[in-house]
Amino acid sequence: MGIVLEGGKIVTAVDSYCSDIRIEDERIVSIGNDIKKSGDEVISVKGCYILPGGIDTHTHFDLESGSTVTADNFETGTKAALVGGTTTILDYATQNRGETLKEALRKQHKKSDGMCYCDYGFHMGITDWNDKTSCEMEDMVREGVTSFKLYMAYKKTLQVDDGVIFEALKRSKELKSLITFHCENGDIIETLINEAKLKGNKSPYYHPLTRPALVEKEAIARLLNIAEIADSPVYIVHLSTREGLLSILDAKKRGIKVYAETCPQYLLLDDSCYGDKNSHNFEGAKYVMSPPLRKTYDNDALWKGISSREIMTIGTDHCSFNYKGQKEIGIDDFSKIPNGAPGVEHRIGLMYTYGVLKNRISMNEMVALTSTNAAKLFGLFPQKGTIAVGSDADIVVWDPAFSKTISVKNQMQNVDYTPYEGFEQKGRVLHAFLRGNKVIFNGKFIEDKPLGKYLYRKTQPEGISHDKSF
Amino acid sequence: MGIVLEGGKIVTAVDSYCSDIRIEDERIVSIGNDIKKSGDEVISVKGCYILPGGIDTHTHFDLESGSTVTADNFETGTKAALVGGTTTILDYATQNRGETLKEALRKQHKKSDGMCYCDYGFHMGITDWNDKTSCEMEDMVREGVTSFKLYMAYKKTLQVDDGVIFEALKRSKELKSLITFHCENGDIIETLINEAKLKGNKSPYYHPLTRPALVEKEAIARLLNIAEIADSPVYIVHLSTREGLLSILDAKKRGIKVYAETCPQYLLLDDSCYGDKNSHNFEGAKYVMSPPLRKTYDNDALWKGISSREIMTIGTDHCSFNYKGQKEIGIDDFSKIPNGAPGVEHRIGLMYTYGVLKNRISMNEMVALTSTNAAKLFGLFPQKGTIAVGSDADIVVWDPAFSKTISVKNQMQNVDYTPYEGFEQKGRVLHAFLRGNKVIFNGKFIEDKPLGKYLYRKTQPEGISHDKSF
Amino acid sequence: MGIVLEGGKIVTAVDSYCSDIRIEDERIVSIGNDIKKSGDEVISVKGCYILPGGIDTHTHFDLESGSTVTADNFETGTKAALVGGTTTILDYATQNRGETLKEALRKQHKKSDGMCYCDYGFHMGITDWNDKTSCEMEDMVREGVTSFKLYMAYKKTLQVDDGVIFEALKRSKELKSLITFHCENGDIIETLINEAKLKGNKSPYYHPLTRPALVEKEAIARLLNIAEIADSPVYIVHLSTREGLLSILDAKKRGIKVYAETCPQYLLLDDSCYGDKNSHNFEGAKYVMSPPLRKTYDNDALWKGISSREIMTIGTDHCSFNYKGQKEIGIDDFSKIPNGAPGVEHRIGLMYTYGVLKNRISMNEMVALTSTNAAKLFGLFPQKGTIAVGSDADIVVWDPAFSKTISVKNQMQNVDYTPYEGFEQKGRVLHAFLRGNKVIFNGKFIEDKPLGKYLYRKTQPEGISHDKSF
Amino acid sequence: MGIVLEGGKIVTAVDSYCSDIRIEDERIVSIGNDIKKSGDEVISVKGCYILPGGIDTHTHFDLESGSTVTADNFETGTKAALVGGTTTILDYATQNRGETLKEALRKQHKKSDGMCYCDYGFHMGITDWNDKTSCEMEDMVREGVTSFKLYMAYKKTLQVDDGVIFEALKRSKELKSLITFHCENGDIIETLINEAKLKGNKSPYYHPLTRPALVEKEAIARLLNIAEIADSPVYIVHLSTREGLLSILDAKKRGIKVYAETCPQYLLLDDSCYGDKNSHNFEGAKYVMSPPLRKTYDNDALWKGISSREIMTIGTDHCSFNYKGQKEIGIDDFSKIPNGAPGVEHRIGLMYTYGVLKNRISMNEMVALTSTNAAKLFGLFPQKGTIAVGSDADIVVWDPAFSKTISVKNQMQNVDYTPYEGFEQKGRVLHAFLRGNKVIFNGKFIEDKPLGKYLYRKTQPEGISHDKSF
Repeated sequence: MGIVLEGGKIVTAVDSYCSDIRIEDERIVSIGNDIKKSGDEVISVKGCYILPGGIDTHTHFDLESGSTVTADNFETGTKAALVGGTTTILDYATQNRGETLKEALRKQHKKSDGMCYCDYGFHMGITDWNDKTSCEMEDMVREGVTSFKLYMAYKKTLQVDDGVIFEALKRSKELKSLITFHCENGDIIETLINEAKLKGNKSPYYHPLTRPALVEKEAIARLLNIAEIADSPVYIVHLSTREGLLSILDAKKRGIKVYAETCPQYLLLDDSCYGDKNSHNFEGAKYVMSPPLRKTYDNDALWKGISSREIMTIGTDHCSFNYKGQKEIGIDDFSKIPNGAPGVEHRIGLMYTYGVLKNRISMNEMVALTSTNAAKLFGLFPQKGTIAVGSDADIVVWDPAFSKTISVKNQMQNVDYTPYEGFEQKGRVLHAFLRGNKVIFNGKFIEDKPLGKYLYRKTQPEGISHDKSF
Repeated sequence: MGIVLEGGKIVTAVDSYCSDIRIEDERIVSIGNDIKKSGDEVISVKGCYILPGGIDTHTHFDLESGSTVTADNFETGTKAALVGGTTTILDYATQNRGETLKEALRKQHKKSDGMCYCDYGFHMGITDWNDKTSCEMEDMVREGVTSFKLYMAYKKTLQVDDGVIFEALKRSKELKSLITFHCENGDIIETLINEAKLKGNKSPYYHPLTRPALVEKEAIARLLNIAEIADSPVYIVHLSTREGLLSILDAKKRGIKVYAETCPQYLLLDDSCYGDKNSHNFEGAKYVMSPPLRKTYDNDALWKGISSREIMTIGTDHCSFNYKGQKEIGIDDFSKIPNGAPGVEHRIGLMYTYGVLKNRISMNEMVALTSTNAAKLFGLFPQKGTIAVGSDADIVVWDPAFSKTISVKNQMQNVDYTPYEGFEQKGRVLHAFLRGNKVIFNGKFIEDKPLGKYLYRKTQPEGISHDKSF
Repeated sequence: MGIVLEGGKIVTAVDSYCSDIRIEDERIVSIGNDIKKSGDEVISVKGCYILPGGIDTHTHFDLESGSTVTADNFETGTKAALVGGTTTILDYATQNRGETLKEALRKQHKKSDGMCYCDYGFHMGITDWNDKTSCEMEDMVREGVTSFKLYMAYKKTLQVDDGVIFEALKRSKELKSLITFHCENGDIIETLINEAKLKGNKSPYYHPLTRPALVEKEAIARLLNIAEIADSPVYIVHLSTREGLLSILDAKKRGIKVYAETCPQYLLLDDSCYGDKNSHNFEGAKYVMSPPLRKTYDNDALWKGISSREIMTIGTDHCSFNYKGQKEIGIDDFSKIPNGAPGVEHRIGLMYTYGVLKNRISMNEMVALTSTNAAKLFGLFPQKGTIAVGSDADIVVWDPAFSKTISVKNQMQNVDYTPYEGFEQKGRVLHAFLRGNKVIFNGKFIEDKPLGKYLYRKTQPEGISHDKSF
Repeated sequence: MGIVLEGGKIVTAVDSYCSDIRIEDERIVSIGNDIKKSGDEVISVKGCYILPGGIDTHTHFDLESGSTVTADNFETGTKAALVGGTTTILDYATQNRGETLKEALRKQHKKSDGMCYCDYGFHMGITDWNDKTSCEMEDMVREGVTSFKLYMAYKKTLQVDDGVIFEALKRSKELKSLITFHCENGDIIETLINEAKLKGNKSPYYHPLTRPALVEKEAIARLLNIAEIADSPVYIVHLSTREGLLSILDAKKRGIKVYAETCPQYLLLDDSCYGDKNSHNFEGAKYVMSPPLRKTYDNDALWKGISSREIMTIGTDHCSFNYKGQKEIGIDDFSKIPNGAPGVEHRIGLMYTYGVLKNRISMNEMVALTSTNAAKLFGLFPQKGTIAVGSDADIVVWDPAFSKTISVKNQMQNVDYTPYEGFEQKGRVLHAFLRGNKVIFNGKFIEDKPLGKYLYRKTQPEGISHDKSF
């Protein structure tokens, strides 16, 4: 007994066509007309798109930050993901200094196993490099953690030096894994923050001023030079600037393999959110994330980078802290505000509304950006990321006729605000299936068990460097 | 009663998966397991790839050139296409000076209608621009000719000036059509040819020396500047140089929409084919085509451009003349040698052997380059260019186990040589279906009627400039 | 008996120092303290700069344009030059189609010989290329005309095609001469003018809109590509756009020898001079020149190009037509307005006031830009272009204490307006010497004979390509 | 009573002309014919060039390196300088960690005062940055040390982080001083050296392999990005790579003020000096310097950068260690070889022989590169760096008729080898004057007292950023 979705329009990264689709035993088994078997449940999805479940490449659930911990944990976070059409999340585990990668991974499993309502995998953040770390990278790959993260910012806590970047990239190439990078020059940021604070400039207004666009651009340019020496591909998370994008294009001309992710906030919000110099409003704290929001000039460039396919993926960097009680920790000093904002729930709705409906991207491109490319880059394809016979039945039925106003009042995310408050959203998840399990029906969350499975991800068969199949 | 292909691996521009596929009434009707209907013919294709039929974006069949006419006409040319896995060709009709576009189109139909063994469409070459031409472009679009061609070379015959390029691009934008460009600076070439001949340098060895790489690069750079002023997309045919490719990348940074095609000869052959200065061998005439073969340095750059997805399509510029009797027209003067070489038959075999099997591209990329992208750019998608429910059943069953040596002795092309003589080819077309009709079976051409249909092609829905769905 | 200038500050392209200077028999004979000979005339120039006489690289005196002729001839033009501190002008002779270069040169001499109050030389504009022209270039060089001009604009009258550019560059390289280029794409301009006129857009407001910045940029980029093929240096006249400048910088990275000239109008005026769309004011006609005035954005970029030494020379493109009676020819059709504006008189005053005093350039750079570089590039150094023992005593004593408002009321130029009306000028020519002859004294023109000599200019000793001594 | 040099050809950065020149009281007092006073000594210099004394921007005399100290101290070093035509050297003082800048300066004076045979000044190397350092920079400027140095290489000893670079640049801008940078990524180098040694690769052959070109390019690109954020000019010492030069050109397009120095060794020697992989020859140790010698490809690019005026100065990075006893310290481990090579004596001879006589640069450019530009950049102009009335009579009479073979046997440098052994040198210093004092006559060193004075250098009047007078 399977399920047949009847009358919808299937959209993949390449194709769009009307056809029925049949699910059985967690998988897609056939696509076509006249494929129903007796006993099947038939659901009419006329007028709806049938999309592969979304993959959010970048979340931080249940993350300690200073004295506090994110508002969303794996339970609330993955529920919000599903409601927004995302059936897989890739969360960042992070090694504390002095800790082994294995310990970090064990802790991450402890936080998440049995909690998740969607499927999940981990990237591993490396902050303390030693010869053991190099060995442990192989252990991680064996545990299905085939991607890593290095920070070029956060001096004295997360930041690593260029020698570590270089060694890790060479190691990663051997392992056919992929390293993701937070690209901001932490040394310069520290200097700028200290200067600002010395001058008494402590409101959120100064957050973006102490992390200017060129600080991202410098880090990206440096990383790509190091990648060229190491002859290894790199993945840049949360690209936020036009200058950074242009550095990526220059590197591509030199033949460097570089994959870029951006986030809805860098496409749709800008630094006017931080208020003006003289306001003493603390509202800007809601937007304190790193990198900070940029200029509309950068928004435009990133949209172009998306539509010209230079940017591969849309993640959210979901990292939620309540405004009350959490963001307020930095009320007297912007540098103490916990960094981050929520977003996992609104990713696909925003890309549909402001990407597809504004004619910036096609439906195929939306699917590529929010699902397929992530699956290919992070070792999940074709299990995830497409609508094809044999793939997991992670299916989102997207109803384009619906519309709503995004608000903290109607969100699933467990946090007291959303940066997109008041934004119109067209379309919504009418039904969603996780490995064939109906988890959302008629827009309602109907699953009460955390069905999410940990995903053992593959490496790149011959190294990403040769597999250009996305 | 349909046909079921059983046990193959379906490959599209994105997906690769094992599944049966069922064809009925010229279309693909279902994909999956257990889809056979009673009465269906079942063909086992275990171990084979199931690919969308190839689309050759660039052929010249039955073309007059000076006092002679190409060795292949639409009959022999389309048969050779099918044998090589290409089920659609886009041939160039060309307006003679003093002629209307309508007359040129009528003549082209006369040459081809009822002759073709695969489906076909036309681009229209414009050589004589006047106000009527601008109006006629709309007539062409109505006749399904939604792409045009302008020549920046061949002074005094085909070449148009920059003002025409500019006007035509603006007109094309209104019509949502696409103009393809032959990019070489004809003025400089003429000067170089005259100089060479004055010095008595008349052997084929001088053909590439009178069309240096910078002559292509200049024309590309100029075209992209004009396209920027006209704010219109452009398509560059037979890109042959690294410098040209870099100019394209620079233009992309400025936001110009540019699509590039290259050909197997520019990837696999180089200017050593023209012999050395002192040899009086005329064999080089076989490779006299424009642009000429380049350096291995250019081959490498073009392969990188393909694998980084900067080059969108692989055409052949098939334009065959017999060595004996035709190429020999220029025995005393290389500038009189009819320009062109055969290739329509070997396109997919070469891309598979030297692209996929050499790990330069994936199978998905091969499909994108030889079929899907062409369909999307030239208004044929999703009727052509993919394996999806509802699409035409233009299907190639590719047997990777086969291998042969390419030779004039075993080719279908109606010409007395092949530039790839002696090249190994892995894989071949085991079976091929044209709109569900079995035209090749077990490697044999089994269709005796010219089933090819003329394709009325669509324009780009909102102009290519916004539809980035490929 | 000589003349000693006592107490001034000598400024060359490199040095600035206080010293007396002694002139005898048309030359500078010594520099230092205590150099006076008995019988010398001693002139105190305390508080003044002693500069090498200016060289205007670009004038059009006594030029026919359509049915009219420029307001300034060689007499009035060279007087205005001297008053403004310019002791040498390089005027453009131009071959009419059907005419030989020798005829054109003879006519130019006829217009100018015995008329000039400052020294003068000619560039030769080539508009009709044939094999004879190539030979005649050598004749020109023998006659002291060691530089030429080709037009990429003015279709059907002055414009040459790319083949001519290419041949002429190769010929020029053999002759060690230099070709100067008017860089605008004439084909596109013609199309845009025709379109504008068809729409009834005929006021001066449409002049810049039919010659957009990209039309200059395209021509520059094309020229530099052709120069690369020809391996020959080029000189670009009246550079007006940021985009053009960036194309020049890109070409320099490829090792192309390119020298750029700009004019005060492209540094100080912008397209707001053409009025707005709805005004029916014809005042804009005063600024109808080609290329047109650009954006302040371009002004800024050109100033940067000057201060970074990417731009080598400041010419004026002086080509004056009276507003009344001449500019008015185009009252109903901007394309009929005689192109050009006056400027030879104000060049150095403007560069001093808006360059040196605004801290954009140093005094040394002003000298380099307005005199030394021109002398080196055009075969006049060290006879002209510097203050050194043995050089011609072309000396300008510049009084920085003076100031005036530029106006048609106080100008020497023989034309009924100046584009700089109302501009403040600091400093003026207190005294000027032409080959030791006192021609201006205490700001008054005191010479009543046309002392100007025709200058037989040298070629570049080993070709400019190796002499980088400027 | 003065000295008159009679019959020579004076060459400055701009001018070349034949004239007598008169010296009195340490200064140049007049230039011209007939300038002799009674009692003057007259020296005929017919057939010779009269050049401004050379300025070597980069020496290390009496420098401790590990357990050893350079072979040349200020006495032998400045004697060698004079013999080679250099009358001013700028040596690097360096702060040790834990030391104040004032202590470092005091030590440097102690080493040099009373020892020098030519004039001298200091740059100050900063290795230990704190708030006091920022204050001390102002003290240095007051002491005539108006330029500084930061190292991006030599991790754990000299290297500073990006935050220090950023702070120091902003401070330098306030002080109108200039910071010079050693650009190599020390983190990556450390990693590569450790790797090499782990593999047992310890011969000098591995020195360049552990400092690849991209390591310099990365550091330059990074520095220029930081300079852009700080809005401050920078000076890059010993540029050695084509890639680095191209990064500089890119930065210039963005308006960044960057001045580059290279050295004769990066123009004339290449990495073949390190021998091949399998040789166990230790001769390569003579060329162990940082950055290492590069490819001929880089030599060519640097020559082009010189002739296109993108590179401003030629220093030597003279830092001599005897092969016997000193270089041998690293006989078992290339990373222990004291870094550096001699060169102060041969700088001008090499630039004349391989620059001017090979037609790569003009005599004027040689003067600009070896003297004038250095004087202007480092606050010594017009006291030093030119031949003009009022300037110090630092004069080199260069005899072009002479020729010799460079050899350890005929050098003044106090070291047991020269990297230029066997190189032909055309021309030599016939006579040299230091502030009017005859120090070399007829090629002989004739001064027995150390006449060299410490030079209190000026800052840039309005900051280099606006003074483009060189």
